Amino acid sequence: MRVLAIDPSLRGTGYAVLEAAAPAANGQARPTSAVALLGLPLKARACEYGTIKNKADLLPSSCLVAIHDRLAEIIHRLEPDCCAVEGVIFVQSYKTAITLGAARGAAILAAAERGLPIYEYAPREVKQAVVGRGGAEKTQVAFMVRALLGLTETPQADAADALAIGLTHLRGQNSPLRKVQALARI
Amino acid sequence: MRVLAIDPSLRGTGYAVLEAAAPAANGQARPTSAVALLGLPLKARACEYGTIKNKADLLPSSCLVAIHDRLAEIIHRLEPDCCAVEGVIFVQSYKTAITLGAARGAAILAAAERGLPIYEYAPREVKQAVVGRGGAEKTQVAFMVRALLGLTETPQADAADALAIGLTHLRGQNSPLRKVQALARI
Repeated sequence: MRVLAIDPSLRGTGYAVLEAAAPAANGQARPTSAVALLGLPLKARACEYGTIKNKADLLPSSCLVAIHDRLAEIIHRLEPDCCAVEGVIFVQSYKTAITLGAARGAAILAAAERGLPIYEYAPREVKQAVVGRGGAEKTQVAFMVRALLGLTETPQADAADALAIGLTHLRGQNSPLRKVQALARI
Repeated sequence: MRVLAIDPSLRGTGYAVLEAAAPAANGQARPTSAVALLGLPLKARACEYGTIKNKADLLPSSCLVAIHDRLAEIIHRLEPDCCAVEGVIFVQSYKTAITLGAARGAAILAAAERGLPIYEYAPREVKQAVVGRGGAEKTQVAFMVRALLGLTETPQADAADALAIGLTHLRGQNSPLRKVQALARI
């Protein structure tokens, strides 16, 4: 099971491709305490993650092309089974919402063109899944993502958000008995 | 000069391809009073217009693909030189703004992928250009668009808005001495 997780924005779209292996049938793979507590998959692995950065002088329409084309290339190369994005709850203004919506549209389009099912998670749910607390700070998310995935560096904020979204999705897939809230297919 | 004008929304994206011929050099082509008053191009012609409708049960991500692919097909077939969209001023909620933004993103992407320059016009400017009054009703816009382009039917609201956006752009191109306000390249 491979998921492409995206945290879209016009100038810095975070992305991550994660995969989960099922726990060993003989039960030898024992979860660490944090992993067990959060109900996360035992063997989640980050295949690739990063940020699609667009310079401030690039036209908005060119930013959309860059977001779409980069994600399309990643999907083509890493062949995820599905896509997960964060739902948007708070934005500063309508103008920001329209701009953010356009970036989301370009990102979602790249996944939808390849027929990937796309799931949306509420920001609180993502923080709850990864940190255990819906009101967690960004730095805590990055710290926990690093620990849970065994990364050798703390990822930048946009990429860390994408990794957290991906972990949230894998948790829902891996722990069918746990209630995964506010999940919507878009 | 051919322009693709778009009035994007998830379930009903209006589009229009318009072209303008320059007035005859000998001055024989005399404008009608409405056309002269509004400073619109003398020989604007609607090559094609319509609405990209997406059914209510279609997933939002599939709507984005439909909007993008239909516009890409139109651009490929009719080869416009540029693209014009309406700027968004009022939306009901942030949720609506995100959804509308995504539809705009999918539409703008189709034009940007083909390298078309994309211009944005304020809604008031579009109404001012076509009806002569920034606070005009939708029905007045449709009526004037029909009259100015010599259409045999009154276009539906979404397509009428797109035709009005296209006329506004052609006016700016045709009447360099007139001030075209709030024009931005996006």
